[in-house]
Amino acid sequence: MIKFAVMGFGTVGAGVAEILQKNSALLEARLGEPIELKYILDIRDFPDSPFSNRVVHDFETIVNDEEVDVIVETIGGAKVAYDYTKRALLAGKHVVTSNKELVAIHGCELLKIAEEKNVNYLFEAAVGGGIPVLRPLHQCLAANEIEEVFGILNGTTNYILTRMVRAGVTFEAALREAQSLGYAEQDPTADVEGHDACRKICILADLAFGREILPEDVPTEGISGVTLRDVELVEKAGWRVKLLGRALRQEDGRVSAYVAPHLVRAEHPIAGVEDVFNAIMVRGNAVGEVMFYGPGAGSLPTASAVVADVLDAAQHQEKRKKIGWTERKAEQIAPWDALSARQYFRVKDGLHQVDEVFPGSEILSHQEHEIAFITPYMSCGELNRRAKSLQLCARLWVLE
Amino acid sequence: MIKFAVMGFGTVGAGVAEILQKNSALLEARLGEPIELKYILDIRDFPDSPFSNRVVHDFETIVNDEEVDVIVETIGGAKVAYDYTKRALLAGKHVVTSNKELVAIHGCELLKIAEEKNVNYLFEAAVGGGIPVLRPLHQCLAANEIEEVFGILNGTTNYILTRMVRAGVTFEAALREAQSLGYAEQDPTADVEGHDACRKICILADLAFGREILPEDVPTEGISGVTLRDVELVEKAGWRVKLLGRALRQEDGRVSAYVAPHLVRAEHPIAGVEDVFNAIMVRGNAVGEVMFYGPGAGSLPTASAVVADVLDAAQHQEKRKKIGWTERKAEQIAPWDALSARQYFRVKDGLHQVDEVFPGSEILSHQEHEIAFITPYMSCGELNRRAKSLQLCARLWVLE
Repeated sequence: MIKFAVMGFGTVGAGVAEILQKNSALLEARLGEPIELKYILDIRDFPDSPFSNRVVHDFETIVNDEEVDVIVETIGGAKVAYDYTKRALLAGKHVVTSNKELVAIHGCELLKIAEEKNVNYLFEAAVGGGIPVLRPLHQCLAANEIEEVFGILNGTTNYILTRMVRAGVTFEAALREAQSLGYAEQDPTADVEGHDACRKICILADLAFGREILPEDVPTEGISGVTLRDVELVEKAGWRVKLLGRALRQEDGRVSAYVAPHLVRAEHPIAGVEDVFNAIMVRGNAVGEVMFYGPGAGSLPTASAVVADVLDAAQHQEKRKKIGWTERKAEQIAPWDALSARQYFRVKDGLHQVDEVFPGSEILSHQEHEIAFITPYMSCGELNRRAKSLQLCARLWVLE
Repeated sequence: MIKFAVMGFGTVGAGVAEILQKNSALLEARLGEPIELKYILDIRDFPDSPFSNRVVHDFETIVNDEEVDVIVETIGGAKVAYDYTKRALLAGKHVVTSNKELVAIHGCELLKIAEEKNVNYLFEAAVGGGIPVLRPLHQCLAANEIEEVFGILNGTTNYILTRMVRAGVTFEAALREAQSLGYAEQDPTADVEGHDACRKICILADLAFGREILPEDVPTEGISGVTLRDVELVEKAGWRVKLLGRALRQEDGRVSAYVAPHLVRAEHPIAGVEDVFNAIMVRGNAVGEVMFYGPGAGSLPTASAVVADVLDAAQHQEKRKKIGWTERKAEQIAPWDALSARQYFRVKDGLHQVDEVFPGSEILSHQEHEIAFITPYMSCGELNRRAKSLQLCARLWVLE
């Protein structure tokens, strides 16, 4: 009999309980023994929930109960969740989480504690919700030197961009729509400004390259500056605008990561990822490119990943799974102005000025006093330097 | 030190050796100990290969060498490969394979032997080449009751269909192109008639539903009958033709599987899977739909999956991974004429006849004496029965 506890009975926590009810026979068969949700830790009571009798308010009850093998943390944030996770691991409990903020900031330390205590700290649900991506990256692609990971890591912004393309509405209108549908929060900053995607690309980079990248290492730009004009203009030229988190291994072994809106060719598999769906692309030196696609959020999809991790932790109780990365070293992170890229510009200048500043550009649209174009490849530092001589209206990255 | 052997030094076997050379430091770091390719079993010699000194011609050398922990089988077919695999497992060796035919036909038996001997029999490379799909299906989606698995499982036919859409060439011309590029064999039967996809959907169904489905249970239709006329006609109506393998769990718990060309909506993520790429979609009762995309064949991609399995087998030497399914029982397989579906028909009849036989159909194109339409939902038995009253030119499945 495996007994576990859930800390935080919100969207994901409630999903975990629902799956446990719905698929209990199947979970027991796969695990080879019964599984029981013994406690739910929350500050609230849930008198109407079928699980109301498991609700407790004191963390000590859980952490001191020897019967509890696995603790699920779906509290969110990096304060209480950090404290409880650390204490749970130190008490020899396996911990499973969907908390991207905590893993992005404290993952390295928490995994080290888990290693010392020979317990599992698993977080498949922290990136891509229900999409299997961390375990495949870490295990199925283990024969590869990973060269790049990138993806649509935030469903809210992907929904907004999809509506701008498909319905021709502005960013502001699409955001209001997303809010009314419950896809965006009342304060949408973490989503639309790219912070959520930033945490996820940190975790992907940590796992893919085996070394810690922190959110502060990741230049992050959201989509609040993306205009309908640019979305429509590039669409006509065969491109689509997508908010991507990207992490690349440079030839010298250093890693760069950033979050920004990109132009993606309409034929690229990631261009077809619409609405609230997420997709993560991994490029390895043996496999080439593989992509993982699915629901990046939501109660049951995210809980699907959490419960799979609970089963995995329960099955690896004696021999923990080897997951981890080395602590951040500044010299392993490449300054992003050294990155080589093409970029999209829309400027209030004439063709001869564009030609002078960025010779060899691909002109996407040319009207009087407004030119939209894609530059040739050069370093981001050089792109910045040259861009200063033009009257910039819009600037986007280009995925190629 | 982990020592392993490769049986069959063809495309995949050579890829395994290449990855071992290319990524040796990384593999050693991930494994925590060195890994050595001790033997290559083949009837040929490879005097120009850097691995020529490992080539042996006698299976006994490998199976009787106590130093060999893992044996990779990339011989193909279900005769010699079956014999050697069985003997290797009985001798207590872990076996890793890319051989879909063998796993589809004898997987159940071989996994049972592996269980008795407490060794691993792993075959991630047998479906989807380099795409991580079997392990994610089995492990990451373990919290789900799987309801359906389907996908583009054969790169050759997907290349041919892509060329028909994109270049407007006939099936025959596209096949010749595929042959000249090395994507199709001189005898292309196994690919174009769907046998390859059939083996792969068997393996996916085995794992997804936990019970054996054999190729003979899977009605299989390839793409040699797909005409350019239909491909172009449905394209204009917003559909694309794709060869899909599908396996579904019926409400009564029985499983149906089949392989056939399908109409897929142009906006469906699987419609954008072009050229030789593969994609597998899984629908679970918690996660919803997730998709795995990537190179379904090729030396290094397939070897990437093989080597990952070798590492996994080496790391699970004491406690084998639990993989397996129960033996085929006829009553667990649903007769496919009970399946409910819509289908596409092109007929040499008038509109009133179509209306009479399939009222409520969606007409895609209507010319004198030729109508293309999609029927309403009904059982396949009923579709068959009614279709007899029409003059059929073409018939395709519809994915919805």
